[in-house]
Amino acid sequence: MKILVATGNRAKFREMRDILREHGIEAERVDVDYPELQSDSPEEIAAHGARYCAESLGKPVIVEDSGLFVDALNGFPGPYSAYVYETIGNEGILRLLEGEEDRSARFISVVGYCEPGGKPVTFTGEVRGRIAEEPRGEEGFGYDPIFIPEGREKTFAELGVEEKCKMSHRARALEKFARWFKRHAGR
Amino acid sequence: MKILVATGNRAKFREMRDILREHGIEAERVDVDYPELQSDSPEEIAAHGARYCAESLGKPVIVEDSGLFVDALNGFPGPYSAYVYETIGNEGILRLLEGEEDRSARFISVVGYCEPGGKPVTFTGEVRGRIAEEPRGEEGFGYDPIFIPEGREKTFAELGVEEKCKMSHRARALEKFARWFKRHAGR
Repeated sequence: MKILVATGNRAKFREMRDILREHGIEAERVDVDYPELQSDSPEEIAAHGARYCAESLGKPVIVEDSGLFVDALNGFPGPYSAYVYETIGNEGILRLLEGEEDRSARFISVVGYCEPGGKPVTFTGEVRGRIAEEPRGEEGFGYDPIFIPEGREKTFAELGVEEKCKMSHRARALEKFARWFKRHAGR
Repeated sequence: MKILVATGNRAKFREMRDILREHGIEAERVDVDYPELQSDSPEEIAAHGARYCAESLGKPVIVEDSGLFVDALNGFPGPYSAYVYETIGNEGILRLLEGEEDRSARFISVVGYCEPGGKPVTFTGEVRGRIAEEPRGEEGFGYDPIFIPEGREKTFAELGVEEKCKMSHRARALEKFARWFKRHAGR
């Protein structure tokens, strides 16, 4: 069982590939640059992206959109996490939270699946946690060095990719997708 | 001479109406909620929005997209200025710039015009300036209390709407549009 994954982010693809493999699905990366909708809803962004990619490739495909939502910052950076990471980075998030007691946050991942001519389907995964006082760890990418998942003391970047992929927002969204996809493909 | 302006922001519309009136164009507001493209290019966002509104209204229309680009923050908040304002606000921008000597920034406005079935045309206006040390002034909206235009000591919010509209990014973009529109409509 195979699925195309449209993403320009190789680190993200490696995570997705490893997670899907656990569920018996083989992932192949395709580097399609799809226009991202400016929306507060990650579901809408993923659905729009999946539909665009399915039409332009002429094949079923998944895309993944994820975001970090910090409670004390009213959900910022949320759906614009990628842009915010590229401009103000982890340092910016930490600065915005200086002196803030409420450091709770959640990571959300949405996987969007679409077939050419079809309607997109989305699968959402979430992991709650908190923002560290300073960046820690070397693995993963993006906000991993500042995000501590619930029940742990280490950041995603300290836990390492393998450990992260057992509990991450992305793993949870992909698990939902995989269960659905196996039923769907078997029809 | 008349033009429809698609925006949900009444303060923005009042500015646009006053500026267009100076150029002999009457503006009428229409409250269309258009999907915004997630893009680093304000031109692309405005073009996409104008085309969407022209198609859904069946009439020629303009939309305006603007952003604050702070040099020391690699252009943040840029194309996501509206979302960033709603989440971390002026306080967030000031916090990110604490202790930063380079406070230079620019405001960009892009007006997108489109007719049903036509290609969108865009007009860009820019004003350079710097970020104030604290919010000052009551007029205007958004980042106006923290933006000091080049050659002045007061923020846009202290200068007031009338003074702001003589020199703002939005006035410059609309002036370009107005000149073009009058030639275009006369053809």
